[in-house]
Parts: sequence; C-alpha cells; structure tokens
Amino acid sequence: MKVSIVMGSISDKEIAKKTTDIFDKFGIDYELKVISAHRTPYIAVDFAEKAEENGTEIIIAIAGKAAHLAGVLAGITTLPVIGIPAKSSTMDGLDSLLSVVQMPKGVPVATVAIDGGENAGILSVQILSLKYPELKKKLKSYKLELAEDVKRMNEELNSK
Amino acid sequence: MKVSIVMGSISDKEIAKKTTDIFDKFGIDYELKVISAHRTPYIAVDFAEKAEENGTEIIIAIAGKAAHLAGVLAGITTLPVIGIPAKSSTMDGLDSLLSVVQMPKGVPVATVAIDGGENAGILSVQILSLKYPELKKKLKSYKLELAEDVKRMNEELNSK
Amino acid sequence: MKVSIVMGSISDKEIAKKTTDIFDKFGIDYELKVISAHRTPYIAVDFAEKAEENGTEIIIAIAGKAAHLAGVLAGITTLPVIGIPAKSSTMDGLDSLLSVVQMPKGVPVATVAIDGGENAGILSVQILSLKYPELKKKLKSYKLELAEDVKRMNEELNSK
Amino acid sequence: MKVSIVMGSISDKEIAKKTTDIFDKFGIDYELKVISAHRTPYIAVDFAEKAEENGTEIIIAIAGKAAHLAGVLAGITTLPVIGIPAKSSTMDGLDSLLSVVQMPKGVPVATVAIDGGENAGILSVQILSLKYPELKKKLKSYKLELAEDVKRMNEELNSK
Amino acid sequence: MKVSIVMGSISDKEIAKKTTDIFDKFGIDYELKVISAHRTPYIAVDFAEKAEENGTEIIIAIAGKAAHLAGVLAGITTLPVIGIPAKSSTMDGLDSLLSVVQMPKGVPVATVAIDGGENAGILSVQILSLKYPELKKKLKSYKLELAEDVKRMNEELNSK
Amino acid sequence: MKVSIVMGSISDKEIAKKTTDIFDKFGIDYELKVISAHRTPYIAVDFAEKAEENGTEIIIAIAGKAAHLAGVLAGITTLPVIGIPAKSSTMDGLDSLLSVVQMPKGVPVATVAIDGGENAGILSVQILSLKYPELKKKLKSYKLELAEDVKRMNEELNSK
Amino acid sequence: MKVSIVMGSISDKEIAKKTTDIFDKFGIDYELKVISAHRTPYIAVDFAEKAEENGTEIIIAIAGKAAHLAGVLAGITTLPVIGIPAKSSTMDGLDSLLSVVQMPKGVPVATVAIDGGENAGILSVQILSLKYPELKKKLKSYKLELAEDVKRMNEELNSK
Amino acid sequence: MKVSIVMGSISDKEIAKKTTDIFDKFGIDYELKVISAHRTPYIAVDFAEKAEENGTEIIIAIAGKAAHLAGVLAGITTLPVIGIPAKSSTMDGLDSLLSVVQMPKGVPVATVAIDGGENAGILSVQILSLKYPELKKKLKSYKLELAEDVKRMNEELNSK
Repeated sequence: MKVSIVMGSISDKEIAKKTTDIFDKFGIDYELKVISAHRTPYIAVDFAEKAEENGTEIIIAIAGKAAHLAGVLAGITTLPVIGIPAKSSTMDGLDSLLSVVQMPKGVPVATVAIDGGENAGILSVQILSLKYPELKKKLKSYKLELAEDVKRMNEELNSK
Repeated sequence: MKVSIVMGSISDKEIAKKTTDIFDKFGIDYELKVISAHRTPYIAVDFAEKAEENGTEIIIAIAGKAAHLAGVLAGITTLPVIGIPAKSSTMDGLDSLLSVVQMPKGVPVATVAIDGGENAGILSVQILSLKYPELKKKLKSYKLELAEDVKRMNEELNSK
Repeated sequence: MKVSIVMGSISDKEIAKKTTDIFDKFGIDYELKVISAHRTPYIAVDFAEKAEENGTEIIIAIAGKAAHLAGVLAGITTLPVIGIPAKSSTMDGLDSLLSVVQMPKGVPVATVAIDGGENAGILSVQILSLKYPELKKKLKSYKLELAEDVKRMNEELNSK
Repeated sequence: MKVSIVMGSISDKEIAKKTTDIFDKFGIDYELKVISAHRTPYIAVDFAEKAEENGTEIIIAIAGKAAHLAGVLAGITTLPVIGIPAKSSTMDGLDSLLSVVQMPKGVPVATVAIDGGENAGILSVQILSLKYPELKKKLKSYKLELAEDVKRMNEELNSK
Repeated sequence: MKVSIVMGSISDKEIAKKTTDIFDKFGIDYELKVISAHRTPYIAVDFAEKAEENGTEIIIAIAGKAAHLAGVLAGITTLPVIGIPAKSSTMDGLDSLLSVVQMPKGVPVATVAIDGGENAGILSVQILSLKYPELKKKLKSYKLELAEDVKRMNEELNSK
Repeated sequence: MKVSIVMGSISDKEIAKKTTDIFDKFGIDYELKVISAHRTPYIAVDFAEKAEENGTEIIIAIAGKAAHLAGVLAGITTLPVIGIPAKSSTMDGLDSLLSVVQMPKGVPVATVAIDGGENAGILSVQILSLKYPELKKKLKSYKLELAEDVKRMNEELNSK
Repeated sequence: MKVSIVMGSISDKEIAKKTTDIFDKFGIDYELKVISAHRTPYIAVDFAEKAEENGTEIIIAIAGKAAHLAGVLAGITTLPVIGIPAKSSTMDGLDSLLSVVQMPKGVPVATVAIDGGENAGILSVQILSLKYPELKKKLKSYKLELAEDVKRMNEELNSK
Repeated sequence: MKVSIVMGSISDKEIAKKTTDIFDKFGIDYELKVISAHRTPYIAVDFAEKAEENGTEIIIAIAGKAAHLAGVLAGITTLPVIGIPAKSSTMDGLDSLLSVVQMPKGVPVATVAIDGGENAGILSVQILSLKYPELKKKLKSYKLELAEDVKRMNEELNSK
C-alpha cells in the first residue's frame, strides 16, 4: 500500500507536507521525491514506468506554472495519477490549474484544489480503501473529526 | 464493480455518454441517473448515503455553472467522487471548473477536464484496477490503442 | 424578525462581523454559526429544514473557494438565501463568486460582493422592511448617513 | 404585491420573459419597462424615487456590459434591488456580472446568475413570501415540481 | 480651463494626487471632490448637470469595484468624461476596469489604465490643448521630459 | 475639425463604420485608413508625426489581439488618441482591451468598450465640442434621441 | 535547414498548414507529424532525442488544452522549441496559452499567439536566418509584402 | 555573437539580471538598455533599424502592462525578437502576457513566461547555438546541471 508523491521543485514541499500528514495519520506508506518533467525527463519516465512494479499504487504529482508533471507521468503509467496545481508567483494558480486539469481524452489526471495537499491525501485514502477495506473505517472516523472541528469552531465562536 | 454516474440535468447526457462508452468498452458495470444537488437534495443525500452499501465503488458527478453536485455527494460518502465540470451557456466552463475543483480541505473531488467524460471513465478504470487486477491488462491495451490512433493520424496526414 | 448567519469556517468570522454590526445597528435579531456544507452536511440539511419553523426569515451564508454552502441551503429551504463569496488564498475570490452566484434555474442565491458582509446585512434589512415597516425609516436614515460619510470625506479632503 | 422589472435595453426581453413567466405562475403582479441608467438617467432616478409610493416592493434590473442599472436604482431606493447580469456580445457576461455584484458597502444589489431570469423571479417570490404567507405554500409546491422535473428526466433517460 | 476630479471614496485620493500633480505641472485649474454614485446619487446628478455651466470642461471620475461613477456622470453631461478604474481589495482591478470601460452605445467613458492617475491628467491636457493651443508646447516639452527620464534610467543602469 | 480613424486591418472596417456613421450624423470631417503598427511601422510613425499639421485634431485607432496601434501613435503625437479594442477570434476581446488600456504613465490612450465604434465617435464629438461650441447643441439633441430610443422600446414592449 | 512540426492531434492540422505555407514560400525544408506527449510519450522522447542528429534545427509544437507537447520536447532537446497554443472547445485558448508559455526556469518554449501558425513559421525563418544569411533578404521582402498588403487594404477601402 | 536586451523601464532590471546571469555563464556578449516604445519611440525605431548592422543577432524586450516594446521592435527588424512579459502592480501579469504574445500574423514575438528572464537567456543561447556549434556542448552541460539541481533538492529533502 504505497503512494509516491513527486513534486516539481523543493519549493513545493509545504504542499507535500499537508499530504504526508494525512498519510501519517492514516498509516499509509509513501515515498516523497523531487522529479521535474522538464529538468529530469528521463527520471520522470523511468519513475513512471517502474512505479507499478515498485509497489506504488497511486502517484501524486505537485507542480506549478506550466505544470506538466502529472500529465507526463499519466502518459506513461496506468496507475491513477492525482495532480495538485501549485500557486506560483504570478497568475494566482490559474496557470497551474489549467495545465493540470485540462488533460486530453484518454489520459486523465485526478485534479484537486490549488495547493490542496490534504485533499490529494484524502483522495488517495479513498481510492485505496476500495482495495483495503480497513481504511473505510478510518475514513468514516475522519469524517466525524471534520464535523468535530466544526463543532469546536462553534464553541470558539460562542465563547467570545 | 459498479460505478454510479449522476448528472445534474439531462442536458449533461452527451458528456455521460462519453463515460459510459468507456465503461462498455472495459466491461464496467454502471448505473446512470439524474440527481440535482439543488432540486433533489434529499435524493442526493440518500443516494450518497446508500451508494456504498448498494455496491457502488466510485461516484462520477457531472454538473455545470455553480456545480455543487460532486461536492455535496463527497460531503456524505467516503467513496472516491470524480467531478466532471460541464460547460454551460456562459463563462465557458470556468464557473463549473472552479466550483468542482476548489473543494475545501478534507473533502476532495477528483476533477477531470471540462466536459471530460472519457477521462472520468478512464480514471475510474484506473482506480478500480488497483482492486481488480484484470483491468490492468485492459488499461495497457488501451494505452496501445491511444498510440495506434496517433499512428493512424500520421498515415492520414501523409496520405494527403 | 431573525436572520441566521452561517459561515463555512471560523476563518470567515471577520466577514460575519461586518454583517452583525449592521444588525446591531438596525436592531435585527440574529444567530451566528459555523456550518459546513461539506464537513457537516447533515447539520446543514437539518438547519435549513428547521430554519423557518425556528423563526428564521432570511439565511445568510458565507463561504470561500468551491463555496457550496448558500446553494445547498437554498436547495432545502424556501426562505431567501443571501450568499457572501469569501476571498480565499488563491483565485482572488473569483472561484467563490462563481460558485455562489451561478445557481441553476429554480434555486436562487441572492449574491453580494466578495467579502461583502455589510451589504448582506443591508440587503436583509431591506427585505425585512417589506414586512416590518418600522425598518423603512431606519433604512432612510442609513442612506442619509452614507451621504454624511461622503460629506465628511470632502471635509477631510479640503482640510489638507 | 408588485414587482417592477426594468431592463436596460429591449434586447434583454428574453431574460425578462423568464422572470414574468415565474410571476404569472405565482400570481405576482408586475410591471415591465425599459429604463436605461445611461440613456434615460432622469427616468431612472424618478422611477426609483417613486417606486415605493407606487406600490413596488421589489425592483429587478436587467443589464449587460458595464451594467450600472441595478446599482443606480439601489442608490436611490431602499427597496430590495435584484440584479440580473446579461451576457453581451463580448466577455461572456463577466463584465456584466462584476458590474452588478461588486457593489460598494452600504448599497447592495442581490445578484443572480448571468441571464438568470427565472431565479430573479423565484428570489422575488421568496422575499415576498415573508410578508405574504400564502406564497409559502406555492414555493413549497414549486420545489416539488423541480424534483418532479428531475424525476421525469430520469424516466426519459431510462426510456432510451 | 477647469477640470473636475471626482472620486467615489476618499480612499482613492492617492490616485487623484497623481492627476493633480500633472495639473499643477501644466497649470490646469481643477477642483477635487468625493462624490459617490451610490451613496450621494443626487449630488452626482446635480454635479453632472451643472458642471458645464460651472465652467468644467472635462470630468475625471475615479472609482473601484462596481465602478459606476464615471458612467453615471456621462449619462447626464455631454462633457467628455474620463474614467480611472481603481484597484480594490479583490479581483485585481478587473471588476473596476470592466465596469468603467464597457459602456453601452451612445454614452462613452474615456478609460485609462487601472490606477492610472497621471494618464487621466495627461489625456485631459491633450483634450484641452485643442482649444488652448498654449498647452501644445507644454505637451511637447513633457514628451521630451519622458524621453529624458529614460535617458537618466540608462545612465543609472550604466553607472552600476 | 478633422478626426483620423486608423485601423490595424481591413477586417476592422465594420467597427469603423459605426464611428463614421456618428461623424456623418454630427457633420464631422474625417479620414479613414488602414495603418498597421507592426506591418507598416514607418507609415504609422509618419502619420502620427504629421497628423497635427495635417489638421487632425483627434486620432481614433482600432486594433485587435496585441493591439499596439493606439499606443504606438500616442507615443509620437500629443493629440488625444482614442483606442477601440477589437474582438478577435480568441480571448473574447480581453487581449485587445488590456493591450489598449493598460498604457504606462505619461502616454494615455482614451479607451472605449470592445468593438465600441459608436462611442469612439461620440467621445470625439464631446472632445471637439469644447472648441467648437456648435457641437454642444447637437450632443444635447443626441442625448434626447437616446432617450427617445428607450421610449420607443417601451412602446414596442407594450404593443406586444 | 530543416524544421520539424509536430502536433498533438490531427485536429491541429489547419494551424500547421499556416506554418507550412510560410515554409513553402521561404523554401524551408520541413517534416510534419502527429506526436502526442500523452498518448505517444516514448515517440515524443525518441523524436526529441534524435531531432538534432536527424538534422532538425528547430522544433515547432502545436497543442491544445493542457498543452504539454512543446514543454516535454524542450525538456529533452537543446534545439529551440517554438510552441503554438491551439484553441480548443472550452476556455478560448487560455488553458493552452498558459500551459505552453509558463515554462519553469531553464527550459524555455518560444511561444507565439493562440492558433498562430504563420508566426511560428516566420519566427523559424528569422532564427534560421542567423545561420543562413540568404534568408535575410527574403525576410526583408516579406516585410515589404506585409506593407503591400496594408496598401492594398487601403485601396480596397477607398474604392468603396 | 551579441544579444541586445532592452527594457521598458529601469524597474524591469531584476528580470534583466536573470537574463544577463545566463549570458555571463554561457559567455554571450550582450548590451543592456532602457528603451521605451512609448516614451522614446524614435530611439526604439532607430535601435531596431540598426540592430542588425550593429552586430545584434537577437533582441530581448522586457515590458509590463500594455507591453508593446517587443512588438514595436519586431515590426522594424527581421531579427528574432524575444519578449518577456513583466508582472506589474495590477492584473498579475496577464495584461503584459497578452500584449506580448498575441501578435498579428507576420510579425512574431517569441514569448517566454511572465518575469521569465532566465528563459529568455536560454532561448537566446539555443537560437545562437544553431550558428555557433560550440554553444551546443554548453547547453548540454546546462541540462545536466538542471538535473543536478533536482538531485540536490532530493538530498536536501531526505536530509531532513
């Protein structure tokens, strides 16, 4: 049960941290690396080719600007690829979002919100739970926690 | 092995057709219905609550404009929810895309391209293939077909 | 004469404060809570179902990103629902605005400006004034105050 | 119980028709006129000044491009003003939407979707129903009709 | 030879300062006031009606968000109206720009860049120079100064 | 009393027609030519240099896409330059609008709406009326005509 | 002296035609093929790797939506890569433009206008002319032709 | 072997620095100047006319807002012109990008990412390498360095 998280640059590591926090919480085994579709294309291809035999079940790719990483990996592998568009210094994340989500017919990338590290994590757990039913229970607890958070927000609001 | 495809209006059926064509091709069992987050909210909640026990493994939601359907279902279920933003008569699909993809922390929607019915289908097959390994081989054949399509395009180009 | 103000997260409380300042000024009774369409969907449904019998006459919903809260409540209740799109860390509020305003036929959300807490308040008073004529006079005074503010700005400008 | 529907140009009449169809259905008395904030500013001011004493309870303003009509009327009257941004030949309605919704503090316009004539109608009925409780029942029936429409769509879908 | 500069709020005064600096430099007589299309609509109408007889030859209007001020004045007067869209806290000035520039047929607003106070000033001088030829020479000197600025930038660049 | 209308391509002639119709109506003398900032840069420079001595009082420039024509002419001449952004086959006119309006400090272009040929005409007349008072009366009549148009629209509306 | 033109799909062939027309005119040897970054990633890598030794001096890549083709090839080769963003059925070409132009540091794509087939051709000729001076003269003639076109437009305009 | 880098204002010098760092690294001779298309149009024309005979082989133009500089130079010269859109205080660089990239047929500008100084440098080296083969080897080393950077990022990631 392994997820590979790849990011286009080390500057994306804060976003990756949100994903690995989710995986630590759910007990999901993962690896984390920097792979650039443009600066290390051979490593990207090699990684995508071997991901399945290396035991990876889902790939999460984080990239900004002309964010091709997720799409490039999805062109090679048949594993599900989740894309996280990263906001960069210009265009407020719109460039990344469109580059990740607007994939052509036949090669999907499962796109989450701009900078949405947690949601890439939760989506991975949901996908894995189809095969590993023990995760279902944890997901249901997590939903309760989300509701608890809201409850706590209400208490905080009223205590003022 | 069942996918539930729900659309916000019957006007989205052309997009759904692209998804069901993929499922017919891969031998995936599916159901198809119109459920509106806004016009039939109770049916939406009821559907999402029972989806898992009804054997649904993935939910695909198609909606346009303020496209809340995928997000609403994802708030209830712990199944993976794939969202297809549908282009409507104004805003060229940008409203739908942002309404589907920009989900808050904790409740992901796996978003594909605007009007991207095929890719919601393929993404579903990729997700199911983790549990049903027989799909892996079909996905690999499908990748070869995509490459064949490109080859045929080259022949067409050169024959002119 | 009660307005219910609900926000998707406690981070929206600064916006809600602008609304409650208006209500304090006009003597409008209100309640304020955090309800998330995605994290507490049952509470959202339950709240919307009972709002009318609980004496709520208008619902104000504040949410950001894929801002579904107003739309979800509007799908349940027949009370007027006012939506305030909240600017989040990406997309400068455009995602929230489109998610709130582009509602499908039959289920309106009365949308005000991004982060427009005051205007959700004033709009509520205008709506309530149809039934409670004593508010009309206060609204007319408020219009005079707005003009007074502009007068003061001119004095400030000229005093320099 | 009267709503005044004003449009910036006769070219907006298809949108107004969607509103008046709703009013005909709910038995709401209305008047319909062309008033331009820019070409007939005095008529606009005069109309807004006298609307209340003429028995108007809600004003609906439809306009495109730099759509100032709703905002101009809202600057004069204390009645609730609903704005419908109309899509014009360029900018896909984004110019109209932003011109209508982004009103400054103190002068709200209750904005509905681009070209959203029906929803301006339904929102009006919801607002009026606070004062005229007989409309509540009709609104509840209308919600059932919306659900019936979805049911019919499902039958249509399955009959194919 | 008088220009009237009106701004929707005192918060726009930094932009107005850029305009008045130009007028001080060119010896153009001007007045500066806060007038809000929405908060002081009667003052706006009255101002626009009397502008010409008060000796105003050009009106400059500065406003942000749903920036109706320039358009409202242009609806009343036949004087040339120059609009400066002001950037506000959301939407990066796009809302203001579209609200100012996209005027309907028959009622133009001469729009300059977002926050473009200087250019509203220079445009005014260019317009006035048609009638007051002594300004022509000053405009030509100003063009030389612009070129001198660039020359100085080159010296600064090379001195490093 | 002459206005020079230049357009970047003959494909802009429908927009220019709207301007010349206004000038024909107001009795304004004009010339009309195709000049491209990119394809005939020397002609553009030469035209702008000699415009004033040739009796031109205002330049109107129509261009689409990366619409540099107005800005290039404004860099040379001190005459007022009015820019009309033309909608092209992509980007819905946004590229043209931003290229025309966002001029740097010191070199304004008086921008009107996308494809706004009439308004470039009316703005020209307003500017010329400062020097040629006989135009004032015509502008006032034109305002009445605009109001008459609205009146006729109301009659058309009511006659149905 | 060879340019390789690759397009992501045969649907881009109209754009490629504009480029090959330029090459036919300037006597530039070229090849034309369909290569998809996502459907034929190995062919894309192989093509980019061998392009230089196959005598290619410039690569032109045409693609739409999440247009990764140019970027992927630029990651492999050190030849100049020109990208043409193709307008697709949604988003009016903005998705393609941002996906092509917003390349990360170190791996440029020389981007031309949306659907700008001719300009990719002319840019190629300009680049090649540095090495093959005989092209310089042709480029200068071409500039004259552009000016001639404008002259003809003026004749057409005046003949009416 | 000389590249001329021109910028519209000295405020663009940080972007130019990224370009000159690349040229220093690759041993490319360059000159750097401020030339404004709008404030120094004659210098711009003169510069572009003489660039080729002065030994310039490529022109790089940096400008923001209505960024006409690259296009204006490209209208005069037949040298390749690379455009760098600079982000300004409003519109997040979208205005500059569209003004630079959307050039009309016949007059291309090779556009790189917003603020993309490095990439304008690398693209220049790639173009020059067609004529000066000794640069090819350096470009290949540079590609290895890019990959090394990614390797170092991985070490940094793992050392934590």
